[in-house]
Amino acid sequence: MPPEYRIKFLPIDRTYPAGKGDNLLEVAMKAGVHINASCGGRGVCGKCRVRIAGGEVGSSPDHLLSGHDRDLGFRLACSSFVTEDAIVEIPLESQIDRSVLSRSAIMSDAASSALAEAVLCRYGTEALVARYYCELPRPDINDNIADAGRCARAILAKACSEDPVFAVGIVRGLSKTLRDADWNVTADVASDSSEVLRISPGNRENAHYAVAVDIGTTTVSAELIDCHARTAGPSAVASSTDYNAQISYGEDVISRIMYCRKRRGLTKLHNEVMSTINRLVSDIVTDAKIDIRDITHIVIAGNTTMMHLFYHVEPTYIMLAPYTPAATLFPPSGTGDLGFAPGLDARVYSIPGVSSYVGGDIVSGVALSGMTEEPGVSLFMDIGTNGEIVLGNDEWQLCASCSAGPAFEGGGIESGMRAAPGAIEKVHVNPVTLEPMILTVGRARPIGICGSGLIDLVADLFMAKTIDRNGKFSSEKGSARLRQGRSGMEYVLCFASETGIERDIVLTEIDLDNIMRTKAAVYAGCRVLLKNGGVEFTDLDSVIIAGGFGHSIDIEKAITIGLLPELPIERFRFMGNASLGGARMASVSRRFLGKTAEIARSMTNIELSESTQFMNEFMAAMFLPHTDDRAFPEVIQALEAHR
Amino acid sequence: MPPEYRIKFLPIDRTYPAGKGDNLLEVAMKAGVHINASCGGRGVCGKCRVRIAGGEVGSSPDHLLSGHDRDLGFRLACSSFVTEDAIVEIPLESQIDRSVLSRSAIMSDAASSALAEAVLCRYGTEALVARYYCELPRPDINDNIADAGRCARAILAKACSEDPVFAVGIVRGLSKTLRDADWNVTADVASDSSEVLRISPGNRENAHYAVAVDIGTTTVSAELIDCHARTAGPSAVASSTDYNAQISYGEDVISRIMYCRKRRGLTKLHNEVMSTINRLVSDIVTDAKIDIRDITHIVIAGNTTMMHLFYHVEPTYIMLAPYTPAATLFPPSGTGDLGFAPGLDARVYSIPGVSSYVGGDIVSGVALSGMTEEPGVSLFMDIGTNGEIVLGNDEWQLCASCSAGPAFEGGGIESGMRAAPGAIEKVHVNPVTLEPMILTVGRARPIGICGSGLIDLVADLFMAKTIDRNGKFSSEKGSARLRQGRSGMEYVLCFASETGIERDIVLTEIDLDNIMRTKAAVYAGCRVLLKNGGVEFTDLDSVIIAGGFGHSIDIEKAITIGLLPELPIERFRFMGNASLGGARMASVSRRFLGKTAEIARSMTNIELSESTQFMNEFMAAMFLPHTDDRAFPEVIQALEAHR
Repeated sequence: MPPEYRIKFLPIDRTYPAGKGDNLLEVAMKAGVHINASCGGRGVCGKCRVRIAGGEVGSSPDHLLSGHDRDLGFRLACSSFVTEDAIVEIPLESQIDRSVLSRSAIMSDAASSALAEAVLCRYGTEALVARYYCELPRPDINDNIADAGRCARAILAKACSEDPVFAVGIVRGLSKTLRDADWNVTADVASDSSEVLRISPGNRENAHYAVAVDIGTTTVSAELIDCHARTAGPSAVASSTDYNAQISYGEDVISRIMYCRKRRGLTKLHNEVMSTINRLVSDIVTDAKIDIRDITHIVIAGNTTMMHLFYHVEPTYIMLAPYTPAATLFPPSGTGDLGFAPGLDARVYSIPGVSSYVGGDIVSGVALSGMTEEPGVSLFMDIGTNGEIVLGNDEWQLCASCSAGPAFEGGGIESGMRAAPGAIEKVHVNPVTLEPMILTVGRARPIGICGSGLIDLVADLFMAKTIDRNGKFSSEKGSARLRQGRSGMEYVLCFASETGIERDIVLTEIDLDNIMRTKAAVYAGCRVLLKNGGVEFTDLDSVIIAGGFGHSIDIEKAITIGLLPELPIERFRFMGNASLGGARMASVSRRFLGKTAEIARSMTNIELSESTQFMNEFMAAMFLPHTDDRAFPEVIQALEAHR
Repeated sequence: MPPEYRIKFLPIDRTYPAGKGDNLLEVAMKAGVHINASCGGRGVCGKCRVRIAGGEVGSSPDHLLSGHDRDLGFRLACSSFVTEDAIVEIPLESQIDRSVLSRSAIMSDAASSALAEAVLCRYGTEALVARYYCELPRPDINDNIADAGRCARAILAKACSEDPVFAVGIVRGLSKTLRDADWNVTADVASDSSEVLRISPGNRENAHYAVAVDIGTTTVSAELIDCHARTAGPSAVASSTDYNAQISYGEDVISRIMYCRKRRGLTKLHNEVMSTINRLVSDIVTDAKIDIRDITHIVIAGNTTMMHLFYHVEPTYIMLAPYTPAATLFPPSGTGDLGFAPGLDARVYSIPGVSSYVGGDIVSGVALSGMTEEPGVSLFMDIGTNGEIVLGNDEWQLCASCSAGPAFEGGGIESGMRAAPGAIEKVHVNPVTLEPMILTVGRARPIGICGSGLIDLVADLFMAKTIDRNGKFSSEKGSARLRQGRSGMEYVLCFASETGIERDIVLTEIDLDNIMRTKAAVYAGCRVLLKNGGVEFTDLDSVIIAGGFGHSIDIEKAITIGLLPELPIERFRFMGNASLGGARMASVSRRFLGKTAEIARSMTNIELSESTQFMNEFMAAMFLPHTDDRAFPEVIQALEAHR
């Protein structure tokens, strides 16, 4: 639904579209309008007072405004929502920046469904496991072929594929099932191998589901896909996300692999992720009120380490040079020995990966993005603990993984955290006063700062000249928020009293150093791929940002710190959880799964870890935005303008 | 080795070729020369005295001949063996018949190897599981593909097939195996699916074996095949046969199926046959002194019921009209849950069947015979409890099973038994005196009579007019051996004192009736197939007799009683255990296994059990040799000559 109302901010006279019910603080943040807010949008600090000068907004009741103020039109922006066109007067200093546009690059539902439509148009709709209702003729003396043969004949009549194959396990019990069901049965058939997976009594054609799962190092997401509904794209009838229960054994893949070297370590980690998956499946089955036996297949996408742990395969050599995984391609299997919950008897497919650090999650996203179908060159990025990047078009693809470090996931950052409730995910710093405006995940009391918040904060402090081009604090400007901490200078984003942790939330010099390394690694990785591909950033048709983290970053600010290349904003596309999206498409399109295998095979993996080219690029990128000013002309220009 | 000596029998002046060491009684029997012998060839009755009138024979010492007799040249035929050309004078009346030729129809080793050569020439040699030794390059930073991918690449370089597939179970442990073996490994790859089944350290290419198994209702045979040796045919390096341990639960398939209806009955029978197979495999592995892990695959042939029990599939509906098996085709599987002995980790293939009573054993033999490659029409027969018959050529095949009854396996016969040691397997009756000459299996003291002995006996008594054309005893001729028994007339083949059971071995009127039904059913089945195929017996290019029973029957005498059609003797071919032979060929020729599937699919099964055409033919065949004299002109002529 397009935004239907217009909110005009005064005194800067900026009008921004908004939808009914949109939070006013968020609208202001999107519009690049600064409003002081230090409680993360919970309506408790009272700093985000605005005056409604025209129209009206809805407001939750609060005790921070007197009845008199209220009558004068004052509201707390964080507790107000759009109900109609309105004019909002901001009593505090404010300023305009380019981040206005960046949010439009986030993929809308409409764009996502267009992508799905394009994929199905190209690869066709054919669920990985097909379901056929067959009314078998009763055997008689003139037609007494084997029970399995009778089913096979009926399946062949429904679908012109190869001869259906009945494994011994299916043949056992088949005679009884057929007779108990009076010869009217539903057959589940793997569309790649023509293997018959199950014969169920009666007609279950209408109740046919798949589960798509993205196993992330941090979170696991699952969706229930209706394979029967013939809609433009696959329709997810339920979905659920949870932390990967492995997380208590280590935050990143390396610590998980280390844990596997302990006795029964692999089995423990395998069991943990299976418990998470089983819980998610149970959730979505309950939500959608379906019979778990109507799930015929599961498509898994995940990074290479996660796939090893899922399949209970030792991942040791992933982390030892020269970084060889045991496998990147796992053929379809049963749920049998994988530790799925009883009752779930489905065929398990997974999206193939390329190397130890470019896994099926990346291949899944690349395939979904369509970049391998276009002659124009695209850059695909998924930034997490590792920055995985893919460069290419319909003829070639290069990929690499750069150990970005966990800074953007909160690792190695004094007040860092993942994007969990209470994490500061958006920051705007007034360049004059250095006072921040913040928004937290879930609008909870702030307890830390996550990746997107860090990028915002560093970018704003850099533009405010409080961080210099070497990525060090500069004491040019005085502020109560800038102080000497235990390990050098630091910036206080929230004072203890405003937080949920009774400690200041700060950005330290050490944090800055870690962020510099991370952004430099990602950018350097991109540069190496581009050089290997013989293209320049300006040649790129599009830059595709995938992953949950990517979804929330402000492209403008990521460019400002030199994490992303400076390109016209419209060339950036957000894809959200592209890994899950690809798994979803594969569940309903056999040829799409085939395409992922083709991509995984054809992609050239470039190892950055021992590359001197990478080291040189990395050193060159340890500067804000970069040692090469020509690569960031607009950032440099804006910087000059602020001088 | 061709027979090198010539033995001349006097006074009938018949010369017959013989090899060094051949038993003289057997040579006489083959030559159609009658010598009285009632002890089964054990050298205890002393009745088979002959005189060596020229040359010499070797003889075991015996106490039944005096030194004087010995000096005069007398020997016991049963205790003498050929050492050079000899002239043998038979003091007893003798006669000639046509059975002389029949033995030449038994497939010689040379013929069998010619058949194997023809099969491999047509379908090529490619073991169902291939074994490749691969010296993998060590991974380095410029070549760090996954371990599974590294193996796959090496396998592809060895064999131009599809991409090898590594199932999860193989990937687990792969990294360790490769590194422990210093990257020099042997890969076992299923040649049909390109699935990698095992990676073993070092070079095992030279030690590559398969096991071929024929699961008969009565006996199970196994052979160890060397898949590495590049000989003209597959070379069996060891073989073993034993009774199917299921036998104590019932002698025929129907009683086995009945047993399956009991609680845990199926599991018991499954376990029994697996114990037999495991014992045979253990035998041949020990004999050949090989490592059981070098067996990469197993090919099983058996009738439809045996395959159900082997695969642990309920066989109930096989015996209930309209006689539908659960399956006739079982795809390749692992030894995993089938109950094979630990250590045997191989891929299990089976020869597909056609219907409840025409199983993979028949298809295996038909494929091996080559009849489906020739434009001329052949008739394939396997006579046991059921007579399975196949008619066809390279364009069409019809098959049927007639419930022959167990008479030829000794069932329902007063003194009947299977062809075990002590069973009378060959009989010759003097048409004048009605005195018999017998040979037993293993030359043991006679304890009963098996199928081939019964056919000989009935044919000889029929030609001697002691059995009339209705299949009843006629008292025309007097003899101490013909007497009134408990249930009518009977013929005494051995008196109690000459047996190992202290009971007379007899042929009764009831036995005769059962034999008549059996031979009539088989012949009637053939007639129905021929009518359906629009051909006459005289149109047949060949009649192929398969099965252990077939191997020992005397074609001449089987024609005499109307079990086999009267055709020139050279059109008959014995194939012995053709089911095992087909399994052996499949183990080394993937395309031959494919051919068996093609034959199983294309064969048209004709149900005789409720066919009135069959009933009419059956009634017409309840006569010796048949109601239609024109079908047996030579038998009728011989009968007239004896009158």
